Amino acid sequence: MTLPSKLIEEAVSQFMTLPGIGRKTALRLALHLLYAESDKVERFGEAVLKMRRQLRFCSRCHNIADGDLCVICSNPSRNSGLICVVEGLRDLIAIENTGRFNGQYHLLGGVISPVDGVGPEDLNMDSLVSRVAERSVQELLMAIGPTMEGDTTIFYINKLVESYNVKVTVIARGVAFGGDLEYVDDLTLGRSIAARLPYEKYLVNGTE
Amino acid sequence: MTLPSKLIEEAVSQFMTLPGIGRKTALRLALHLLYAESDKVERFGEAVLKMRRQLRFCSRCHNIADGDLCVICSNPSRNSGLICVVEGLRDLIAIENTGRFNGQYHLLGGVISPVDGVGPEDLNMDSLVSRVAERSVQELLMAIGPTMEGDTTIFYINKLVESYNVKVTVIARGVAFGGDLEYVDDLTLGRSIAARLPYEKYLVNGTE
Repeated sequence: MTLPSKLIEEAVSQFMTLPGIGRKTALRLALHLLYAESDKVERFGEAVLKMRRQLRFCSRCHNIADGDLCVICSNPSRNSGLICVVEGLRDLIAIENTGRFNGQYHLLGGVISPVDGVGPEDLNMDSLVSRVAERSVQELLMAIGPTMEGDTTIFYINKLVESYNVKVTVIARGVAFGGDLEYVDDLTLGRSIAARLPYEKYLVNGTE
Repeated sequence: MTLPSKLIEEAVSQFMTLPGIGRKTALRLALHLLYAESDKVERFGEAVLKMRRQLRFCSRCHNIADGDLCVICSNPSRNSGLICVVEGLRDLIAIENTGRFNGQYHLLGGVISPVDGVGPEDLNMDSLVSRVAERSVQELLMAIGPTMEGDTTIFYINKLVESYNVKVTVIARGVAFGGDLEYVDDLTLGRSIAARLPYEKYLVNGTE
């Protein structure tokens, strides 16, 4: 597919670098902007550039931040004794959306994955240990995906903070709400049976 | 879904203005750029802004152009006696991709649609008539979608150029190649029967 202008060709190529955007979609997006009002396109381009140029990372938890600390770390009503350890920003956003967590976060920036060449030294481990050492952190809640790499990472962190007086917990794994039992994979179903809990506890819907 | 930064919130909102991009996809795209290398993001933003700032439209056919004339109008090997009239750039690109057309184009910028408040005066009609009047145009090939509005537009143009010595043709409509007869709509199937052609003609695969 040849395009009648080098400028649009370049814009299409750039859109194609985004995840899940193929050449046809890239062309549709580029043409949309091409025919949009000029100031709308300026706003679009500027927003993207500004985000990347001005955005900083929280010096405490590595969340994205507009200043030195992110909105969560600088919020005095959040419980600084409870730290939820997540892989990255997407997971933080997902947990925030539940409205069920009032602690702080720590973004690892990935999980330990020898296959992909990601070791503990590539992740935000040192700053996590410093936080545990310096502050009165009572609990580290591991909200990390139930994969081989995730479990390895949890195991590693548990070892790291062993000597400190901190409780390490892991988010519950089991059959999802609204999920049909027959479609649940064996591992999840097996684990959810092994980790069964008394009915009284099942009913408790505490917000931390 | 609240985001932990105003900058990323603005970028997500801007991505959501693009066609077919909802909030979740917008977030995915914004986060991709957020974690991408800085110069990659600069290239992306600049490509979009440059496209809109520098792009011009061909003074002859209204195609996008890097200069005064587009690559097609400035190509001496294209047949200037044959003009393919299309709604817009997408159709031009689709026809160019077939590799079966060697004439020039004229982009109307839409079709006549009273329902949407689009009249002939909103489209590139005058410049089309000028081209027909000024140059030795032998044929206007109408490559316009087979809709009520498309047919109205073709009818209108046919009337407009009636007094000039130009042949008006319309792209063939019928059952698509590879299409299953049983799923073809009645109108298309009926028309394709009415417009049936002798087998010898069916076999001709001339490139214009």
